[in-house]
Amino acid sequence: MRERDLIARLLAPLATSSTARGLTDDAAVFSPPIGRDLVFTHDVLASGVHYLPGDNPSDVAWKLLAVNLSDLAAMGARPAGVLLGLGLSAAEDEAWVTGFAAGLKRAMDRWGVALWGGDTVSGLAAAVLGLTAIGQVEPGQALARSGANPGDTLWVSGTIGDAGLGLAIATGEAAPDKFLLDRYRRPEPRLALGQLLVGQATAAMDVSDGLLIDSERLALASGVAITIDLALMPVSSAAAARTARDDAGLAGLASAGDDYELLFTLPPSLTMPGATLVGSVGKGEGLIVLGLDGQPFAPSKLGYEH
Amino acid sequence: MRERDLIARLLAPLATSSTARGLTDDAAVFSPPIGRDLVFTHDVLASGVHYLPGDNPSDVAWKLLAVNLSDLAAMGARPAGVLLGLGLSAAEDEAWVTGFAAGLKRAMDRWGVALWGGDTVSGLAAAVLGLTAIGQVEPGQALARSGANPGDTLWVSGTIGDAGLGLAIATGEAAPDKFLLDRYRRPEPRLALGQLLVGQATAAMDVSDGLLIDSERLALASGVAITIDLALMPVSSAAAARTARDDAGLAGLASAGDDYELLFTLPPSLTMPGATLVGSVGKGEGLIVLGLDGQPFAPSKLGYEH
Repeated sequence: MRERDLIARLLAPLATSSTARGLTDDAAVFSPPIGRDLVFTHDVLASGVHYLPGDNPSDVAWKLLAVNLSDLAAMGARPAGVLLGLGLSAAEDEAWVTGFAAGLKRAMDRWGVALWGGDTVSGLAAAVLGLTAIGQVEPGQALARSGANPGDTLWVSGTIGDAGLGLAIATGEAAPDKFLLDRYRRPEPRLALGQLLVGQATAAMDVSDGLLIDSERLALASGVAITIDLALMPVSSAAAARTARDDAGLAGLASAGDDYELLFTLPPSLTMPGATLVGSVGKGEGLIVLGLDGQPFAPSKLGYEH
Repeated sequence: MRERDLIARLLAPLATSSTARGLTDDAAVFSPPIGRDLVFTHDVLASGVHYLPGDNPSDVAWKLLAVNLSDLAAMGARPAGVLLGLGLSAAEDEAWVTGFAAGLKRAMDRWGVALWGGDTVSGLAAAVLGLTAIGQVEPGQALARSGANPGDTLWVSGTIGDAGLGLAIATGEAAPDKFLLDRYRRPEPRLALGQLLVGQATAAMDVSDGLLIDSERLALASGVAITIDLALMPVSSAAAARTARDDAGLAGLASAGDDYELLFTLPPSLTMPGATLVGSVGKGEGLIVLGLDGQPFAPSKLGYEH
């Protein structure tokens, strides 16, 4: 299928927003809402690096959108539109692109985001998929990693470590489990929570490389020390069923990537129902991990280092 | 070099705009100017497809920015910021990335655009470089391909076919010429002209796949017939020196890609000094090419078909 046919048949039907201009002009045109800041992010997923070549293309599209919207969630933004950079190899045949477009549409509908434009190229050695997401937030209210203060509390959404176990299932290294595999393949960006955190959280980011390493990054960005208490870390029943409840087992979950949960700090006077308190912010710099006995210990790794 | 070191050492120094937040948050935050529309485009360049693996990385960065800003120019927009999706293979070593960053900085400075954010991934089979460009334009004034009316005149900026000859030089198929090679490797987005066309041109687009095929696309988008007179087409002296001045020679230049000139239509009452009148708009649909004898003829191809 030629690029222009592919775009006309499979992608143009997704570009129903007036901003997209039917994908017929050189660029998209957006009238920004008055009194809002815009938030921009761009993440890339590569076949064989971020997903497996045999993965369902519908899941790949879902994840591509989800990881970008997770960045918007971490800023407290509401998604508006996306631009798609589709780099395809011979392996992405018409069936693959059809499945990808269907998955993208489903994810776009779920999160209320429009396809505004992009580019499609073919002839690559392996697929490389880029997506730019644009969101909006109250002016001056975008969340940042840098605002945590000593005395704040540390919170995380959802459960930690599921996606890492899901990856092991996807690669055949662990026994199947639908919940865990879905947590790896179809992450859920915490958009509603992110918007709720605006004006409340002192710092926020999404957990993409592991709770521990991302907590360390938040600590460095804020110039504070963060203490995580592994005994408080939220663990799903599916993950608990296959993980030893000891320091090494919990640290393994806390250093696995792809959670796409939100990590945030709150001033001492606030709590966040539905999220889990996992630690505290103090003076100093860096990360302190408390084991089940309440004593600091040094995990063998903190997360995925790029 | 690890990704985070690469970003910190080579890309973060380019991200001096407050919008970029030092590349330390999950996304960039931009306060859009009141009373402007925003224009978004995303183009991908792949090693071995859009450029040659041995090409100077500084030129690759220049071209990546230029082809995106050419889309903004075609909409009449003024560039504001870019997001960069850098997908690298083992071939892009530290020297390559250093050269790329230097070329990107030079091009960003030339066109007054800021690096707002992006993503870097490594481990690809070959480099794939995506760029999202964001620009601004007077509200409701963005140019489109669809506004040409019968009676309008057709114009093009610069000279046509140079970059196609430059590509033949780059691949060793033609004798060297610095001007033509530069036209292929370092295109100049026609930003000032694009902004000048706002409120004057009835339709506009950039010429990326060949003057003839892009004129046909403009005709289809506008629902008109476009007549191009090859005798009027602007040709550089360097291109003229190695091209037969007959219908086949001129049609070869007019069907070569990578010009990144602006093609636009004006109402009959207007002219555009510095650009060249190359044809006219009439009733009907599609493209008519006039040869040197003033008679219609059918070129063997119209341009690069994706």
